[in-house]
Amino acid sequence: SSCRSMDSRAGLAATPGALPYYVAFSQLLGLTVVAMTGAWLGLYRGGIAWEGALQFNVHPLSMVIGLIFLQGDALLVYRVFRNETKRTTKVLHGLLHVFALVIALVGVVAVFDYHRKKGYADLYSLHSWCGLLVLVLYFLQWLVGLSFFLFPGASVSLRSRYRPQHVFFGAAIFLLSVGTALLGLKEALLFKLGAKYSTFEAEGVLANVLGLLLVGFGVTVLYILTRSDWKRPPQAEEQALSMDFKTLTEGDSPGSQ
Amino acid sequence: SSCRSMDSRAGLAATPGALPYYVAFSQLLGLTVVAMTGAWLGLYRGGIAWEGALQFNVHPLSMVIGLIFLQGDALLVYRVFRNETKRTTKVLHGLLHVFALVIALVGVVAVFDYHRKKGYADLYSLHSWCGLLVLVLYFLQWLVGLSFFLFPGASVSLRSRYRPQHVFFGAAIFLLSVGTALLGLKEALLFKLGAKYSTFEAEGVLANVLGLLLVGFGVTVLYILTRSDWKRPPQAEEQALSMDFKTLTEGDSPGSQ
Repeated sequence: SSCRSMDSRAGLAATPGALPYYVAFSQLLGLTVVAMTGAWLGLYRGGIAWEGALQFNVHPLSMVIGLIFLQGDALLVYRVFRNETKRTTKVLHGLLHVFALVIALVGVVAVFDYHRKKGYADLYSLHSWCGLLVLVLYFLQWLVGLSFFLFPGASVSLRSRYRPQHVFFGAAIFLLSVGTALLGLKEALLFKLGAKYSTFEAEGVLANVLGLLLVGFGVTVLYILTRSDWKRPPQAEEQALSMDFKTLTEGDSPGSQ
Repeated sequence: SSCRSMDSRAGLAATPGALPYYVAFSQLLGLTVVAMTGAWLGLYRGGIAWEGALQFNVHPLSMVIGLIFLQGDALLVYRVFRNETKRTTKVLHGLLHVFALVIALVGVVAVFDYHRKKGYADLYSLHSWCGLLVLVLYFLQWLVGLSFFLFPGASVSLRSRYRPQHVFFGAAIFLLSVGTALLGLKEALLFKLGAKYSTFEAEGVLANVLGLLLVGFGVTVLYILTRSDWKRPPQAEEQALSMDFKTLTEGDSPGSQ
């Protein structure tokens, strides 16, 4: 059918020359951010444990792995896997977001549990308000996205109106996650270092560099995501969007040859 | 000529129905952010003055007016003024960015001068590092943008490659400005309130709401900017890009009828 041939053409579209380098750079940045968060907690905060005072440290590491690295990579899936079917790519996109959400929830439980044991107040800071907003929006976005994937009964017109909204809010939630991480990092620094922050303590400098790397990861992911000549061909995209569930239930696999 | 007729068509393109409401909402948010920054400084920080301890307060207000409100509005110029010539719109875009930069520089001078008089260290915090990065990128972006406007000798191919980069980095710098403002707000809160922040002090709650409104302004501007059916028709855009300087020097004014 014409749908199959369109999918095939999309599946065999050449990868733009510079894209792999940008993706590699984004992964280098993302992994450095995760490693540096671990190094910061290990070197200056006594490491990580679920029990006792070190439980707090589960929070920053989980959030950075889940809501920064994995969420960022989930957005890149459509640019990286250009020769897979849209169906495969969508499933991977959804799965990465599930992993991200589960790891983030572990991080959220860690900080609430830690606060409860210490008798600290919850949800008073701008960091926590932004974090709550991110979690609610992230969960809603995931639910609505899943619904469109599972119920292809929605008209093509409704789907094509939803798609750009999904992309925009995905990018916005990711950026807000990066911003929330920066606020949390700053909070952790000021609570512990206080006035010593201004003496260029090693921990402060390391955390500032970590902050800039977080910004760098966010900007790089956004760049790869928004560069128009790196997108999949729109026609094939539209076709695949309306054919997805049909091919899933019929066991057909267009474009996989 | 065909260029004139294309410009004319672009100039007379109908404004999308929902766009004015989103623009109005963005302005409501932006003005509320400015007013609330003023209210915060007035109610809890003793107001504003260039001399003495209140000099610090010039910093947040100037940065919010310049690098948040005016920078955001400069990005919206191409969506708002759809019936003006590209030349007029570009000049307004550049002028708004100049105002933004000048007001931001006043804010930067205020904080350095305040630090100097108080004997405080400079540029040790993540807020200040992000702020410095924003200023350097903002100035570079403005210089390169102005060069392309003034020297139309650059080939159409070079211009059409530069344009999406200019748009991407413009959006990225704006978002980084919002993030930097959030870090600064958080810093100001933690320095003054310390542990009292967790008791839901009125100043803390007001500042948190201000933070969320800053996020809201950033997201709204980004939405208006990136919605593809709200852009000017691309063909007319390309034409105008290569015709601009010519019409400027020849005193011709396509599309202004």
